[in-house]
Amino acid sequence: MEDISSYVQKNKERFIGELKDLLKIPSVSADPVFSQDVLNTAEAVKENLLKAGCDRAEICDTPGYPIVYGEKSIDPDLPTVLVYGHYDVQPPDPMDLWESGPFDPVIKQTPGHPEGAIFARGACDDKGQMFMHVKALEYMVQSGTLPCNVKFMIEGEEEVGSASLEWFIERNQEKLKNDVILISDTGMISNTQPSITTGLRGLSYVEVEVTGPNRDLHSGLYGGAVANPINVLAGMIASLHDENNRITIPGFYDKVEEISPEERSEMAKAPFSLEQYKNALDIDDVYGEAGYTTNERSSIRPTLDVNGIWGGYTGEGAKTVIPSAAYAKISMRLVPDQDWEEICQLFKDHFESIAPKGVKVVVKPHHGGQAYVTPIDSIGYQAASKAYSDTFGITPIPQRSGGSIPIVSLFEKELKSKTILMGFGLNSDAIHSPNEHFGVFNYLKGIETIPLFYRHFTELFRSQENES
Amino acid sequence: MEDISSYVQKNKERFIGELKDLLKIPSVSADPVFSQDVLNTAEAVKENLLKAGCDRAEICDTPGYPIVYGEKSIDPDLPTVLVYGHYDVQPPDPMDLWESGPFDPVIKQTPGHPEGAIFARGACDDKGQMFMHVKALEYMVQSGTLPCNVKFMIEGEEEVGSASLEWFIERNQEKLKNDVILISDTGMISNTQPSITTGLRGLSYVEVEVTGPNRDLHSGLYGGAVANPINVLAGMIASLHDENNRITIPGFYDKVEEISPEERSEMAKAPFSLEQYKNALDIDDVYGEAGYTTNERSSIRPTLDVNGIWGGYTGEGAKTVIPSAAYAKISMRLVPDQDWEEICQLFKDHFESIAPKGVKVVVKPHHGGQAYVTPIDSIGYQAASKAYSDTFGITPIPQRSGGSIPIVSLFEKELKSKTILMGFGLNSDAIHSPNEHFGVFNYLKGIETIPLFYRHFTELFRSQENES
Repeated sequence: MEDISSYVQKNKERFIGELKDLLKIPSVSADPVFSQDVLNTAEAVKENLLKAGCDRAEICDTPGYPIVYGEKSIDPDLPTVLVYGHYDVQPPDPMDLWESGPFDPVIKQTPGHPEGAIFARGACDDKGQMFMHVKALEYMVQSGTLPCNVKFMIEGEEEVGSASLEWFIERNQEKLKNDVILISDTGMISNTQPSITTGLRGLSYVEVEVTGPNRDLHSGLYGGAVANPINVLAGMIASLHDENNRITIPGFYDKVEEISPEERSEMAKAPFSLEQYKNALDIDDVYGEAGYTTNERSSIRPTLDVNGIWGGYTGEGAKTVIPSAAYAKISMRLVPDQDWEEICQLFKDHFESIAPKGVKVVVKPHHGGQAYVTPIDSIGYQAASKAYSDTFGITPIPQRSGGSIPIVSLFEKELKSKTILMGFGLNSDAIHSPNEHFGVFNYLKGIETIPLFYRHFTELFRSQENES
Repeated sequence: MEDISSYVQKNKERFIGELKDLLKIPSVSADPVFSQDVLNTAEAVKENLLKAGCDRAEICDTPGYPIVYGEKSIDPDLPTVLVYGHYDVQPPDPMDLWESGPFDPVIKQTPGHPEGAIFARGACDDKGQMFMHVKALEYMVQSGTLPCNVKFMIEGEEEVGSASLEWFIERNQEKLKNDVILISDTGMISNTQPSITTGLRGLSYVEVEVTGPNRDLHSGLYGGAVANPINVLAGMIASLHDENNRITIPGFYDKVEEISPEERSEMAKAPFSLEQYKNALDIDDVYGEAGYTTNERSSIRPTLDVNGIWGGYTGEGAKTVIPSAAYAKISMRLVPDQDWEEICQLFKDHFESIAPKGVKVVVKPHHGGQAYVTPIDSIGYQAASKAYSDTFGITPIPQRSGGSIPIVSLFEKELKSKTILMGFGLNSDAIHSPNEHFGVFNYLKGIETIPLFYRHFTELFRSQENES
C-alpha cells in the first residue's frame, strides 16, 4: 500500500492542474451575471467526486444554486464523515489590484510560500481547501484505506448567506445523517505551527439607506439649510461605537459570554507578534475594544464594521451636490450566545430610532448565522489533533477564529453532530481580498492529513462504541 | 422699430430650437470622455455669436477648454458691457432618475411652468441663461437699438473650477476692459416676484482619502482588531459639526462677517414659506446652524457638506470586507470675508490632525473661489432693477444667494468692475440634479429684460459721466 506522501508527490501536478481547472470558472454567487458559471462549477465538482471514487454524485436542485451531493458507503456499522464545502467564491473586485487575473490561476513563489502558491479567487476560500478532501478520498479509495463511510455536501451560496442550505438539510436529514462533519474553510497560525479552529463568530449583515430630500440638491442653494444624508449617515455610523470602541446598540452585549481569565491566559499563549501583524498590514497601530488584546478582539469579542458606503457624486472631478440618499452595508460579528436574528432586530430598532429629523432611515436585515464553539474533548477534535500532529510533527493549538461559518450551528441543530474545522489556510492568503492565494505546501499537506483524520476518528469512534 | 415683445413672439420657435441644438451637445467638463463634445459646443457658441451680430467671435485657446470671445463695438465713448457665461454643464448622473434624456431636450408642461419648460442638463445652468444674452444682442442689432459696446466671454470649465479663466484674464486685460459685467447663472424668487442676487457664497472643495491596511481584509479575521477606514472616515466627518451644527474646524469662523440685525430683518421680509419649502423636498424638517433661519443658513452663513462618499463593497449583495481605504468629496460654502485658499488649508490641517492611529489621511484641495457682495447703490444694480421692474411690473427684491460663482471676485480684482447677477432661473429648476429644466416664460422674459438693462445702464452711465 502506497503511503500518502508518495501518492501525493507522484500525482502533484495533476492535483494542481485539476484545482486550477476549477479555479478558472468564475463562480461568483453574489452577482447574477455569473450564474451559468456557478452552475458549471457545480457540474465540475460532481464530476470530480465521481472520478475520486464516490459511488454516487448528484446535482441537487434547490430554490437557489444547487448543492452537489456525493457519497461512498462501505459499511453501515462504520461511522460516517460528512464533508461540507462551497464551490462559490467571493466577488473579485477591486479588479485593478489583482496582479494576475482572479480567474486565471498561476503559481507564484512568495517569501511566505517558497514552494509556491496558487493565486486565484477561491484558491483558499474555498475551492482549494474543499478539493483537498476530494483528493484525500481519491487516495483512500485508490489505496483501499478508506476506513468509514463518507458523504459530501458542497453548496454554491456560502458567500451570499447559504439561503438554500437550511431548506436542503430539512428535506434530506436521512440522506445527510453522519457522525461528524468536516469543514476546511479556516486557517492555521503558520506552516510550522498548525492550529485547529475551535470557535467561530456569528454574523449579522444589514443594509441601511438614509434619505433626505426627494432629489439631489445644489449644495450652494441648499447647503446649510437641509440635513445632508451623507453627513447624517456618517454621524449615525460614528455613534455606533463609544470612546472605548464598544458598540452602543442597546442590548447588544446582553448575551455575550464573558471568557474566563483562565481561558484568556491560555489563548494568550498562542504565538503572535504584534509587530509582524502591523507590518504585514502597513499600519502604525492596531485599534479595537478597550481592555482586550488583538487576538481577543478578533475572536471572542463581537464587532461592528461598515463593509461598504456610498452616496452622492463619486466620479471623476467635482460635483457640488447634496444627494438625495446615502447607503451603507454593515455587518456585525457575534460571539456565543448572541442570536443573529435578535441582533439584526436590535440594530434595526436602534438605527431607525437615532435618525434625526429631516431624513428617513430604512434598515434591511440581509443574512447571518450563529456563533459556534467546538468542544476540544470531542473525538472529532481529538482525531483531528492527532492527524495534524502526525503530519506536522507538532501538536496543533486550538484557536478561536474571528470568521463566521453560519451553517455550523445549523448543522448541529438539524443534523445533531459536531463540526471539526480542519483548516489549512493562512491569514496572509488574502481571502476576500485581491491576490487571494493558497500555498502548494498547504494544499498537499491537507491532502496528506485528512486521511489520518479518517483513520483516527474511526478508531476513536469504535472505542467509544465498545465502551458504551 | 419693432418692440422686443413682438420680436420675441415672432421668433420664439427659432429661439427655442437654437437653444435645444446647444443643449443636445453633452459638454460635461468634469469627464474627459466628453472632451470633443465640449470643444464642439465652444464652436457652436461662436457661430451663434456671429449670427447674432457680433463683429467678431473667436475660439481662444487656454491650458484647458477654450474660451469663446465675441464683441460688437459701436463707439469707444460709450460704455462696454461684458457678458460672462459658461457653455459646459454638470455631469448628468444619476442617469436612471431622468425622465427624459439629459441631452435630449424636450418641452414639458409642469404646474410651476404652465407655458412649458425645456428639460435638459444645462437648460438653466448655464446654456439657457447664457443664450438669453445672445438673443438679446440679436434683437438689439436687428432693431438698431444697441446703446453701447458689448463683449462676450463664455468659458468651458465653470463646473470644474474655471482653472483657465484667471490665466485668460491676466493675459487679456485690455481686450476684456469693460464698465460692468453681466452674468445670468442665478435664480429669482418666483415668476411673479423677481429678485436680483446681490451676494454669492464662496467655495472650498477638497477630496479626502483615509487609508488603513494595505489591502482589503476579511472582516471576520480582522474585524474588531484594526481601524476600519470607513468607520474612521464617518467619525471624522461627524466631528466636523458640533451639536449646534457649527463647523468645528479651528479658525473657520474667524473672518466671517456677522450680518447686522437690521440687515437680517430686511432679509426676513422676502416672501418665503417654510411649509412649501419642506413639501417641495418631501422632508419633515429643515436642519442647520442653530440661531439662524433657513434663508440665513443658505446665504449669509458658511457651511460644510459631503458631496460624495465611497469605500468598500458597494455592489449587489454582500461582501464582508474591511476596505483598505475610504474616500469623500467635501465642500464648504463661504461668506465674506473668508478666504477660500485659507479655508482649504485650515480644513487640511485640521482633518489631517484628527486622524486617529491606524490610518493615514490625505487631503487634496481641489478648487474654490471667494464670496462676493454687489452693492445695490451701483448704477449696474439700479439699471438691472429698473429693467426687471419694466418687464415684470414689480420691483425686484435684492437677495443673497447660497450659490457660488467664484470668478466674480476674480473679475473685480483683475478687471476692476462690478458684476450684476441678472438671473432668470428658479430654485425648482433642479440645477445639478436630474430633470433640470428652464421655463419657456423665463427664457423669453430674460431675452426681453436684458436689452432694457443695456438702455438703463447706458443712460445712468452717461448721467454719471456728465456729473463728474
